[in-house]
Amino acid sequence: MAATIKSVAELAGVSIKTVSRVVNKEGTVKPDTLKRVEQAIAELKYTPNKAARDLASNVTSVLGYVYDNPNAYYIIDMQKGILDVCRKNNFELLIHPCDASSENIAQELVDMVDSAQLAGLVLSPPLSEMPDVLHHLDNKNISYVRILSGDSEFSSTLPYVLVNDFKAAFQITEHLIAQGHKHIAFIAGEVIHKSTTERLNGYKAALEKASIPFDESLVIEGTYSFETGVKSADVLLSMPSRPTAVFACNDEIAAGTLFGARMKGVDVPNDLAIAGFEDSPFSRQTFPPLTTASQPTNEIAQSATSSLIQYLRAKKTKTNFNNLTQTFTPQLVVRSSTEVTL
Amino acid sequence: MAATIKSVAELAGVSIKTVSRVVNKEGTVKPDTLKRVEQAIAELKYTPNKAARDLASNVTSVLGYVYDNPNAYYIIDMQKGILDVCRKNNFELLIHPCDASSENIAQELVDMVDSAQLAGLVLSPPLSEMPDVLHHLDNKNISYVRILSGDSEFSSTLPYVLVNDFKAAFQITEHLIAQGHKHIAFIAGEVIHKSTTERLNGYKAALEKASIPFDESLVIEGTYSFETGVKSADVLLSMPSRPTAVFACNDEIAAGTLFGARMKGVDVPNDLAIAGFEDSPFSRQTFPPLTTASQPTNEIAQSATSSLIQYLRAKKTKTNFNNLTQTFTPQLVVRSSTEVTL
Repeated sequence: MAATIKSVAELAGVSIKTVSRVVNKEGTVKPDTLKRVEQAIAELKYTPNKAARDLASNVTSVLGYVYDNPNAYYIIDMQKGILDVCRKNNFELLIHPCDASSENIAQELVDMVDSAQLAGLVLSPPLSEMPDVLHHLDNKNISYVRILSGDSEFSSTLPYVLVNDFKAAFQITEHLIAQGHKHIAFIAGEVIHKSTTERLNGYKAALEKASIPFDESLVIEGTYSFETGVKSADVLLSMPSRPTAVFACNDEIAAGTLFGARMKGVDVPNDLAIAGFEDSPFSRQTFPPLTTASQPTNEIAQSATSSLIQYLRAKKTKTNFNNLTQTFTPQLVVRSSTEVTL
Repeated sequence: MAATIKSVAELAGVSIKTVSRVVNKEGTVKPDTLKRVEQAIAELKYTPNKAARDLASNVTSVLGYVYDNPNAYYIIDMQKGILDVCRKNNFELLIHPCDASSENIAQELVDMVDSAQLAGLVLSPPLSEMPDVLHHLDNKNISYVRILSGDSEFSSTLPYVLVNDFKAAFQITEHLIAQGHKHIAFIAGEVIHKSTTERLNGYKAALEKASIPFDESLVIEGTYSFETGVKSADVLLSMPSRPTAVFACNDEIAAGTLFGARMKGVDVPNDLAIAGFEDSPFSRQTFPPLTTASQPTNEIAQSATSSLIQYLRAKKTKTNFNNLTQTFTPQLVVRSSTEVTL
């Protein structure tokens, strides 16, 4: 009777998966394990068959998710979306949060991919938008997919997914204008995120369309945080001619603005309308619940991960990779924080 | 001049880390990479020196964090704490959320550790509290550290960290009693988490100490979710003799209870005091902010990960592992949701 992969695994004292990894020269095997498997193969005169090779294609590879983002809900949604696709394709996920402003960030990522032997990376903003990081990864022939804020496709051999922040911000601002607001403040997140400028541009475009002059004093710089919202409420509500509405760059800022307004006894939405961005769980849980733009983070992550895995397979089999870029536009969700009640 | 590890790396076209991994037969190297390195070593007549061996001890290994928990802030805090320690010790982190109620969960974890070649696992509740899972891991000689709800140490060859939920729940309930409450409801999370019963027992013990009879109708079963809080508020506030205070098993439930009370026009804290558990960011961001127990999730994760890495080193060097179990007790944080204002 011919030797089976199972008998090799037993003799070598390793799993069947490990044997198939050795046989197919795929994945990673410890040197001494490799030796034991090779000896067992020789001893049993084992010849790999098709079943073993099929099994090999199910060997686990590991993707890395690299991010610099303080927003817990965004990260968890991204992780869930990536993991959903990983699981279906027998990949595991390594996470690597990092400091995008660190001087050695590009080298850190290259080293990490090398030492953890990752198959590829999922990059979310701001890392996906940093030319130096991408350049280093390209030089090392590291595969990655990018999630980017933008509205127009461009040519790229590597996969990417677009999020149309401009259009969603335009719609939120239009909604506030339709509620009768002319004095609308904008509270920005970090400008290292391209989404910040895209959302600002969408806000400006909607004002322009409605012939409302853009007033720079109504734009508050900040970070994507609750604290920025609290502080901005203080600034905005102390203005001699204070705004009647606020478009906050994300829900955390919006929730902070709501909190700050309450502290000052300002009624939301009657004295101040507040809109956020992202549709995170707590946008439904504040009182009143927040108008926002629903960003399908989970789907975005799934789409990006699927593209990356398709790209990796095409690279491995040396076939053509068909880069079908998906564009996601967050959708306006109107709740009580912007609808005047009498 | 003698060949250096650098020249071997250059000739083989790999990183220095990879060479040291081969030299020290540590970590994982792809079969074809191994061959190239071995050829380069032979060609250059390289003899590994102490520096190379020292470097080898810094080779990246990967830990896995396994969890089944819907609480985004808890997960992110756990990940951050684990990653802090991983980074200092040159480990990377693979995450593997899973369904603890799945029939094959134990085998799934064993396979994952094998195929992703993990050095060890960090287990948080409920997985850390499931005998069948632990039994399977033990059978495969897989190293892990457990985070457990409990107040008394026990003998174990593997590391673990304790969280004293009983004591913290006792203190929260005592605080509510000190505010004059006698009719205090308890809203529970999933009973698969031992923390749920520990917190319930702490609540019962504080009532007993104050000679307040335990009333089973004031205990509401639910999940660790905002929705459970909203629904429970509805139930509790419809009771003929309704409670004046609520101890919710976590902050999400407490925030939901607050939301539900507001929907019914019930003033918090004057008509209903509400306390949560965990001190998650939004416990400070609700209006009024929530009284809670501050659970040092980040520190708990750090302590667990440090213990695991110490255990792995002891195992590798065949030295004795000194299991110094740390116990963390969440601390009472009093905020406006339980302090009556006049």
